[in-house]
Amino acid sequence: MSDSPIATLNHVDRLRKVREFTRSICDPLQIEDYVVQSMPDASPTRWHLAHTTWFFETFLLKPFDSSYKSTNDAFEYLFNSYYNAVGKPYPRAKRGLLTRPTVKEVWDYRESVDKSLFDLLAKLDVAENADLAHVLELGLQHEQQHQELMLTDIKHVLSCNPLYPAYHNADTTENATAPDAKWIKYRGGVHPFGFDVEAQHGAFHFDNETPVFEHLLQDYQLQDRLVTNAEYLGFINDRGYQRAELWLSMGWATVEQESWNAPLYWIQDEDGWSEFTLAGKQPLDLSEPVSHVSYFEADAFARWSGVRLPTEFEWEHAAKSIDTTGNFADSKHFHPRTAVAANGQPDVARQMFGDVWEWTSSQYSAYPGYQPPAGALGEYNGKFMCNQFVLRGGSCATSAAHIRPTYRNFFPPNARWQFSGIRLAG
Amino acid sequence: MSDSPIATLNHVDRLRKVREFTRSICDPLQIEDYVVQSMPDASPTRWHLAHTTWFFETFLLKPFDSSYKSTNDAFEYLFNSYYNAVGKPYPRAKRGLLTRPTVKEVWDYRESVDKSLFDLLAKLDVAENADLAHVLELGLQHEQQHQELMLTDIKHVLSCNPLYPAYHNADTTENATAPDAKWIKYRGGVHPFGFDVEAQHGAFHFDNETPVFEHLLQDYQLQDRLVTNAEYLGFINDRGYQRAELWLSMGWATVEQESWNAPLYWIQDEDGWSEFTLAGKQPLDLSEPVSHVSYFEADAFARWSGVRLPTEFEWEHAAKSIDTTGNFADSKHFHPRTAVAANGQPDVARQMFGDVWEWTSSQYSAYPGYQPPAGALGEYNGKFMCNQFVLRGGSCATSAAHIRPTYRNFFPPNARWQFSGIRLAG
Amino acid sequence: MSDSPIATLNHVDRLRKVREFTRSICDPLQIEDYVVQSMPDASPTRWHLAHTTWFFETFLLKPFDSSYKSTNDAFEYLFNSYYNAVGKPYPRAKRGLLTRPTVKEVWDYRESVDKSLFDLLAKLDVAENADLAHVLELGLQHEQQHQELMLTDIKHVLSCNPLYPAYHNADTTENATAPDAKWIKYRGGVHPFGFDVEAQHGAFHFDNETPVFEHLLQDYQLQDRLVTNAEYLGFINDRGYQRAELWLSMGWATVEQESWNAPLYWIQDEDGWSEFTLAGKQPLDLSEPVSHVSYFEADAFARWSGVRLPTEFEWEHAAKSIDTTGNFADSKHFHPRTAVAANGQPDVARQMFGDVWEWTSSQYSAYPGYQPPAGALGEYNGKFMCNQFVLRGGSCATSAAHIRPTYRNFFPPNARWQFSGIRLAG
Amino acid sequence: MSDSPIATLNHVDRLRKVREFTRSICDPLQIEDYVVQSMPDASPTRWHLAHTTWFFETFLLKPFDSSYKSTNDAFEYLFNSYYNAVGKPYPRAKRGLLTRPTVKEVWDYRESVDKSLFDLLAKLDVAENADLAHVLELGLQHEQQHQELMLTDIKHVLSCNPLYPAYHNADTTENATAPDAKWIKYRGGVHPFGFDVEAQHGAFHFDNETPVFEHLLQDYQLQDRLVTNAEYLGFINDRGYQRAELWLSMGWATVEQESWNAPLYWIQDEDGWSEFTLAGKQPLDLSEPVSHVSYFEADAFARWSGVRLPTEFEWEHAAKSIDTTGNFADSKHFHPRTAVAANGQPDVARQMFGDVWEWTSSQYSAYPGYQPPAGALGEYNGKFMCNQFVLRGGSCATSAAHIRPTYRNFFPPNARWQFSGIRLAG
Repeated sequence: MSDSPIATLNHVDRLRKVREFTRSICDPLQIEDYVVQSMPDASPTRWHLAHTTWFFETFLLKPFDSSYKSTNDAFEYLFNSYYNAVGKPYPRAKRGLLTRPTVKEVWDYRESVDKSLFDLLAKLDVAENADLAHVLELGLQHEQQHQELMLTDIKHVLSCNPLYPAYHNADTTENATAPDAKWIKYRGGVHPFGFDVEAQHGAFHFDNETPVFEHLLQDYQLQDRLVTNAEYLGFINDRGYQRAELWLSMGWATVEQESWNAPLYWIQDEDGWSEFTLAGKQPLDLSEPVSHVSYFEADAFARWSGVRLPTEFEWEHAAKSIDTTGNFADSKHFHPRTAVAANGQPDVARQMFGDVWEWTSSQYSAYPGYQPPAGALGEYNGKFMCNQFVLRGGSCATSAAHIRPTYRNFFPPNARWQFSGIRLAG
Repeated sequence: MSDSPIATLNHVDRLRKVREFTRSICDPLQIEDYVVQSMPDASPTRWHLAHTTWFFETFLLKPFDSSYKSTNDAFEYLFNSYYNAVGKPYPRAKRGLLTRPTVKEVWDYRESVDKSLFDLLAKLDVAENADLAHVLELGLQHEQQHQELMLTDIKHVLSCNPLYPAYHNADTTENATAPDAKWIKYRGGVHPFGFDVEAQHGAFHFDNETPVFEHLLQDYQLQDRLVTNAEYLGFINDRGYQRAELWLSMGWATVEQESWNAPLYWIQDEDGWSEFTLAGKQPLDLSEPVSHVSYFEADAFARWSGVRLPTEFEWEHAAKSIDTTGNFADSKHFHPRTAVAANGQPDVARQMFGDVWEWTSSQYSAYPGYQPPAGALGEYNGKFMCNQFVLRGGSCATSAAHIRPTYRNFFPPNARWQFSGIRLAG
Repeated sequence: MSDSPIATLNHVDRLRKVREFTRSICDPLQIEDYVVQSMPDASPTRWHLAHTTWFFETFLLKPFDSSYKSTNDAFEYLFNSYYNAVGKPYPRAKRGLLTRPTVKEVWDYRESVDKSLFDLLAKLDVAENADLAHVLELGLQHEQQHQELMLTDIKHVLSCNPLYPAYHNADTTENATAPDAKWIKYRGGVHPFGFDVEAQHGAFHFDNETPVFEHLLQDYQLQDRLVTNAEYLGFINDRGYQRAELWLSMGWATVEQESWNAPLYWIQDEDGWSEFTLAGKQPLDLSEPVSHVSYFEADAFARWSGVRLPTEFEWEHAAKSIDTTGNFADSKHFHPRTAVAANGQPDVARQMFGDVWEWTSSQYSAYPGYQPPAGALGEYNGKFMCNQFVLRGGSCATSAAHIRPTYRNFFPPNARWQFSGIRLAG
Repeated sequence: MSDSPIATLNHVDRLRKVREFTRSICDPLQIEDYVVQSMPDASPTRWHLAHTTWFFETFLLKPFDSSYKSTNDAFEYLFNSYYNAVGKPYPRAKRGLLTRPTVKEVWDYRESVDKSLFDLLAKLDVAENADLAHVLELGLQHEQQHQELMLTDIKHVLSCNPLYPAYHNADTTENATAPDAKWIKYRGGVHPFGFDVEAQHGAFHFDNETPVFEHLLQDYQLQDRLVTNAEYLGFINDRGYQRAELWLSMGWATVEQESWNAPLYWIQDEDGWSEFTLAGKQPLDLSEPVSHVSYFEADAFARWSGVRLPTEFEWEHAAKSIDTTGNFADSKHFHPRTAVAANGQPDVARQMFGDVWEWTSSQYSAYPGYQPPAGALGEYNGKFMCNQFVLRGGSCATSAAHIRPTYRNFFPPNARWQFSGIRLAG
């Protein structure tokens, strides 16, 4: 678990802190920014705010507070994401058509639900009520996930604007230089993988990290830092986007159809290469980790490099031996940072946590013996086990308290709007 | 020309009045409402506000005020609609992706351009400068067109919301009963059509209304009022939407593909038929004129009725003999009204102006001898002469000062989001 | 009416002759060629053969021969084109999925129906049975229409093949030079238009040519020959396909979306410009009339030329004063020919009939007083009166006996696979 | 390896035998059947015949016979499937647009290449030339793969025809009853997986089966026979296609979009359930294994059954202990058969080979240490490792000599036109 002080707080304080962090993410936004859905995969900020609140209302207040009365029945339909068990959700691709409830009404809705929540939690002993504690924890974690999506979705919205408006004024310029990449060797063998519920005394985890199971690993190597923009530019300059033989068949079709020729937010104009960031359009920093690449691009880059991407098990095995620290959302930098030189330290994998999610070559599937939980919350993870690849380690938009070595994120191989990057394996 | 007092005002006062009316249309809106584009054909309110301002800036301030400096060059790109001569426009279907400039910044932009406009007009004598007068007039008329679109577009946006939010609280309920329809006979012969520039002393008109020309009309009849919701419901109940033989081939394909079974905003639920209006969801008033039907539906209804739609020349000939009065946007009712009984008056066509645009069977094309004006403003009308049908008479969302008997509106045959209805001919 | 000897034959002989011509069109085909549908608008040859036979079976044999028994009920479903009154047709876009009945079985079907037809006609006196005569005539004309489609559809199929296989070995090379175009002036006035059933003693015509009606024409001019490939190449070389201002809005969108840069079958490669013809790939003959252009291209070319396209009434008025002779399908050249110099003759419009269909600026609509015939055959023409433009004069793939001055063909403005070209008007 | 006598023949005899089997598959076809492409994933028979010949010409004749001259250079472009290294292939989805070369010309092409092949092989000692032997073997195996596709693709073509034409007259009716399913238990542990090249003395295998590697398996169970039509009908009757909670998210979206309500070829009409087979439309045999289901359906059925699908490693481990015998293409039954009762035998998994490919829950990916071969042939398998699931065991359309326990087939999760079925695991 993370070093973050958040983890040591009690549930109620953590709930308050997480809900406040959501609000702080919205601070730089204009009302207009809350409304737009720039593509079906992304959602309006307004929707994220309401949906995370709907989650607490639906799965905590309604079941645990018999006196609770919903302020607006229509919200159940409007702000359900994909829980078919709770009713047919409002179509995902049309979330950007809604102008009401207004942003103010959504904030009022949050406030009203928060009040009911804190009132209820003041009356009940969370520590004594395992079901309640579980749903509360799940709601917290769920909100942290949406905080990350709020950041990546608003970045996508703003990137569609030819004015390149900045979300905030963070200074993303660094004068750092990335150290040369080194290979770290790991010994194979039969190791446990997944989240060990017993050993961790029932600490929070998602269903898809369980059960813990034994898996046989071959010897392998990982690079000790993320792939940089400079390295990725080498791939581009070597005609990486023009050579079919470097790509998966479906990846090549996507390159041709979408006219890809660089990572999602790279811009090439009379000033050379720049990059759209949450701090607006910035000159491309060659030392920083490359970000906003798809699995297809990560895989092609690895093939071009003569090596490969790690499996999720290789990654997890390596990650379990180091601290869960890194460049997370907590610092509000919201942009990857250049790797720091090791300075005589023994070989250690840097940037494993934070900065960018790392694509693995593992397609997202169930661990041996996996059982999805019953009920609506059982729809959480299992039903996406198809045509997605696993990413590990969190990003600069992930909360430190949200991540752990066994955490499995997953996206389709063409997704690029997350902070997703590359670590090479061999 | 209309009776409206607006027409008697001087240019500067009219400009002020038209610009103010635009603002009054926006009064009931929340900021969120300004942002959304609910379909490619419709535009966000924010965009209409900026585009009509861009029009004055581009075609009036820049050419006529050498000292004028634009506040933001990017607006030229963002708020151009389709004037290719002024540069490649920002893609129409993506207008809803923009969150900046904000609504407030757009209002500031309007205010700044208005100030420059009124300063300039105070210095120049419009009456002495025909070119300036023409562009000013065109800008006024252009803004009136967009006022109508603002109303129809925001109606579409709000209709996408399952909460059916009301734009305003107008009382659309009437206890009136529509009188029985009567047929009025008109004599054929060679008549002049189009706008007679000389006879009208150069009054405003669009290029597509010229030149005036002689056309031979056969004898014909028109119904003395619009088709009502009750009559249209008869078509529905007679399985009108299930009988291929009543439809144009392309219309039937649309019915099947879009699952049409009623006019655009009709809702059938446990409470029977209701209608989404700018005053929210209302019980269907059977006496009111049917609205929001496509050409395909108007044509099928006429065929089912055993008669036909008028040509645009039949309509114009009949319209020239009556006053240009009706239920227009000026009253802010923004909904068609039930026809009033004639009460012993001689046969006269009612509801010819206002209430709903009337589909004609005429496909939109050039009058004999038509010449589009030179330059960017020449793109105004001529380039849409393909796959569109002419509508006549204005609607409850049209300004009274904007309409005249020779006015030609046009939309594709599947368009339904305008206030468009049916008058029968034989 | 045409000079063709066909017109003087009796019905039975004409039926035999038309059916034989269909077979002769198929002579050069391989079985494989009969099967393919290269786009939704075109149909496999196999389907044309069966459908024209189905037409006689459905509308003549079944109603007029009570003892007739169909050989295969499934054919009614498979080979209905769009007659909803006869049952739901097999989907047009899927005609190329059928491999059975085989080509041989379709020929057998034709033979069997022909036998029944000729047996019936031997027993009945066609001259005495107006209904029978009408349907027989309609069947003949219908088959002639499909003969033209067979030629244009197989041309499209073969053009999709990188081997550019030739349909036949006709010598399409000419050493002729097109004479300079001259303008011919026509006087306006009120003239009759459409097919005059009485004056023509009930001769064959389609419903859409009626009723005859008076129409007022302004003075106008037509060029005395078709636009040539050389002239059209001038448009291309003057960046005609790159200049938005020359195009209808919808035309420009099509140019961009479809990457149009020349007429449909023009090929530009290391050998310069060539053209795919039914005689295979041939060097572009600059003197020949341009063919396989859409309405969008014809309209843009006319605008670029500073003039316009004729209306269908201008065309008809001019055509009524000349003979219905030209380069028709009867000669089996199946390719337009260079105009012949007038050689001191008085001004006369050449190439009005045959060579290529001439796009008019008239959108296809009903004549005043038009009434579609009752029953399934009433679906013939009226239901396509939407988003189509009228073409006049027939082409090198039209039978001479099929065409007349009042004949109205129609296609959507983006259609290019017919032999369609340009005559300028002013 | 299989028991099939084919495996014991020498290369030349095997080549002859495989090429002859291809011809025998075509025996029942009409020329028309060879031409049609009924969906982008399937190819016309004509194309399969030419492509498999192109493979021998390109990868064997050209490199190994310096005197070989191609008969037609265009074929290289037309009949390349996806080997980008050999040049840009003709677009897959347009294979059905080609009518030339004709079927006869394709057979001539095969004959001509065969003659050159056998002449060359008569001169060279295959046993002494490992590279030649490898390519020859690869060509054989490649042709066997296409034989299976020829059968599944022509089945799809014929199924589009409302006449339901039969490919052949095989008697698919059985009066057998499927025995109750039993669970067989397998012990876990570290086992070798993949094709052991050394142990098998270099016998043929595909690159994706290598290298052999150790993998740790948990204890597991498999059902001893395939899921039957009766069992699958139980799922349908229990509203399996209407319950979102049984499906993967992407599977449910497919069900809704494609209106799936039964396996691909099932037909429900007034006669109850029937099934389109290569022997035409037949009453549904409830005892036979269910076939033509997608991964989505297999997975939903397993979830509904309260169990799961096997991983590809569980399947392989179980398969290695039994004979590679079953209902293969060799018998030309081309339809799955009812399982035979065990009759007192010890527990043994039946129908593991042949009948239908068995969907596994393993997404198709590289084995640890996998290296794709260099050159064009390296495109064979690796580039499809994305969004596909592994199927095992072969089907009634697979040649016995083609299959082995380590063989990995793969298709996207929505593919249904292969003979694909279900075995349950737990």
